[in-house]
Amino acid sequence: MLLANATIVTVTAKGQYGLIERGSLAIEGQNIAWVGDSDAPPAQFREMERLDLGGRLVTPGLVDCHTHLVHGGNRAREFEMRLRGASYEEIARAGGGIASTVAQTRAASEEALVALALPRVDALIAEGVTTLEIKSGYGLDTDTELRMLRAARRISRLRPVHVRTSYLGAHAIPSGMDPDTYIDEVCLPTLDAAHAEKLVDAVDGFCEGIAFTPAQIQRVFAHARALGLPVKLHAEQLSNTGGVQLAANFGAISADHLEYATDADAAAMARAGTVAVILPGAYYTLRETQAPPIDAFRTHGVPMALATDCNPGSSPMTSLLLTMNMGATLFRMTPEECLAGTTRYAALALGLSDRGHITTGARADLAIWDVEHPSELSYRIGFNPLWKRIYGGIL
Amino acid sequence: MLLANATIVTVTAKGQYGLIERGSLAIEGQNIAWVGDSDAPPAQFREMERLDLGGRLVTPGLVDCHTHLVHGGNRAREFEMRLRGASYEEIARAGGGIASTVAQTRAASEEALVALALPRVDALIAEGVTTLEIKSGYGLDTDTELRMLRAARRISRLRPVHVRTSYLGAHAIPSGMDPDTYIDEVCLPTLDAAHAEKLVDAVDGFCEGIAFTPAQIQRVFAHARALGLPVKLHAEQLSNTGGVQLAANFGAISADHLEYATDADAAAMARAGTVAVILPGAYYTLRETQAPPIDAFRTHGVPMALATDCNPGSSPMTSLLLTMNMGATLFRMTPEECLAGTTRYAALALGLSDRGHITTGARADLAIWDVEHPSELSYRIGFNPLWKRIYGGIL
Ligand SMILES: [Zn+2]
Ligand SMILES: [Zn+2]
Repeated sequence: MLLANATIVTVTAKGQYGLIERGSLAIEGQNIAWVGDSDAPPAQFREMERLDLGGRLVTPGLVDCHTHLVHGGNRAREFEMRLRGASYEEIARAGGGIASTVAQTRAASEEALVALALPRVDALIAEGVTTLEIKSGYGLDTDTELRMLRAARRISRLRPVHVRTSYLGAHAIPSGMDPDTYIDEVCLPTLDAAHAEKLVDAVDGFCEGIAFTPAQIQRVFAHARALGLPVKLHAEQLSNTGGVQLAANFGAISADHLEYATDADAAAMARAGTVAVILPGAYYTLRETQAPPIDAFRTHGVPMALATDCNPGSSPMTSLLLTMNMGATLFRMTPEECLAGTTRYAALALGLSDRGHITTGARADLAIWDVEHPSELSYRIGFNPLWKRIYGGIL
Repeated sequence: MLLANATIVTVTAKGQYGLIERGSLAIEGQNIAWVGDSDAPPAQFREMERLDLGGRLVTPGLVDCHTHLVHGGNRAREFEMRLRGASYEEIARAGGGIASTVAQTRAASEEALVALALPRVDALIAEGVTTLEIKSGYGLDTDTELRMLRAARRISRLRPVHVRTSYLGAHAIPSGMDPDTYIDEVCLPTLDAAHAEKLVDAVDGFCEGIAFTPAQIQRVFAHARALGLPVKLHAEQLSNTGGVQLAANFGAISADHLEYATDADAAAMARAGTVAVILPGAYYTLRETQAPPIDAFRTHGVPMALATDCNPGSSPMTSLLLTMNMGATLFRMTPEECLAGTTRYAALALGLSDRGHITTGARADLAIWDVEHPSELSYRIGFNPLWKRIYGGIL
């Protein structure tokens, strides 16, 4: 297939638009075979089926690199209670907080988890998402963690989207359990079981005062490394506990949230090649006031990704376009940074370099938009200009 | 038609949910003929065509009571320039700001204005909007103001949605013109012409340091009253200039924005029956820190509406559901207030009492949602759970 008369946004290695006006793009099988700035591709592509885009904009398919979209229940009633003035104690007594999501996820079958997740997946796909990450972490027991990961794998068989899984057993401390005991007796054995079933693409953790210490996360990371799995970390969201330094020491593919990360953290991430995953939805929902150190990431050359953090508590969000607008509005990222953050660098945060950019040989995962300029993708709020999506070469 | 097995949110006169579980609702012609809490309606409705909603939630169709969605061009490039560090002078020199929208709107034909607006209208309709308001105000000359209003009228013939127009000639001072001269020689004669063509449902103005003074707005309002037209006002958005008091003196149907309104302003609005239209999209986009006095509106019993303020500069937003989430997240409005604010009170802000609530005799403009509880409509971010929409009794 030849996409002709297109405005192509290649997304360069430096995260720039790499705009090609009146260009064309040839797809062979699942991959991009040629991309150029004319309507006259090399002879071997001229006989291809031709799709005239009428000048429409082509970007890499979007990548949502941080979601918790497989889970039971929702927390709308808790959201309402809080806005009616209920205290955190009252909400906890009413069974609210992450414990309510854990209870509802434990109670849900694999079928139910998939059925509940699919509308969220479909909302992302409708905005041009072609790869997304899904974490476990609402089970905190072996059965449920495995069930969440199986549900995530099943989603990629049910929908034209590539799913990368992250095992997040170290997400929260199960009620009434000692955290060290939980790590040693539940979290690590569950990781072994999940890995044996090929359910794990990466290992994640939540390093925070309200979750696990760097020493506990270190045990999880060491175990992951022994299994040959890449690691990533929820770090410095509410305070600085040293998570980024730990992640960098383990060569983490990403460190996520980062509101309280320092300049030294940014430098360590740059040295380790760790992507900064920025999650404005949680910042917005929690009404935080400390923004992540975007300028430090720029100065040190740390690639920045943007993701929905789709989860029922702190970011019940299923729009990656809105995430781009929030990255620009709340954190003053440029539209160019926002686009690189949901394509090339989001893929990199998942350890993938074969997508998120328009280059010969890359996967033909593409989004075609009814806009004139890529800045429009970050500018609008609650509007979806997607025209068509191409997944693995298939329109 | 009989909607059976429904969870009905009637939206009471006090702005409460008025939840009916396992209820049913009969529609005759364009209106609601009966609503009740059982599956056994009165005999005359039992033979109707029956639609089983499987417990789904029915609310009034949503009402977006403040938009500028008819306009030429967009301001994405300006958005990008600003995020890349351009100063306001540089942007103005590059032709940015409202002047760029005025220039692009003046250059657009009525057909072009309609074609550009329809995707925005369709985005609102897809979220269950059945009535929306559209303002003029990017012409600032007679021809363009009339063309904008004609485009707005045409939209309601092209789509199943009720459009209310507001004449906003007093939106901005045309470059190089004295504001008093503009009001007397352009704004008021254009109002006469538009009214003669039956293009005006209400008259609006922008009372602000960067726009018109209360004395200038007063001339516009007096003229509107002489023509028998209701008035509304953009007031106290960036500072308190006395707009609310003026609006209340004229019995305005709404005062909009209101970040800098005072307790005395809220009291005046309560006495005048003026609805407070809250516009969180502009607050979010402009990164304001002063929230409107929600508690004062509650204390004085001022009905609060919520609207997108869809416009190319300060709120390029086309999601009323996201507006509800922003009302809750940014201004701590309860989900119940957010729903009343996009139904009953939004209709009231347009001078309409026949819609926005589910009552015998009201218009059968309804939204049917795939959710269990109305709090979910404000809780989610960038997700559209609309199942079906009914407009004037037609599914
Ligand atoms: Zn997370
Ligand atoms: Zn406005």
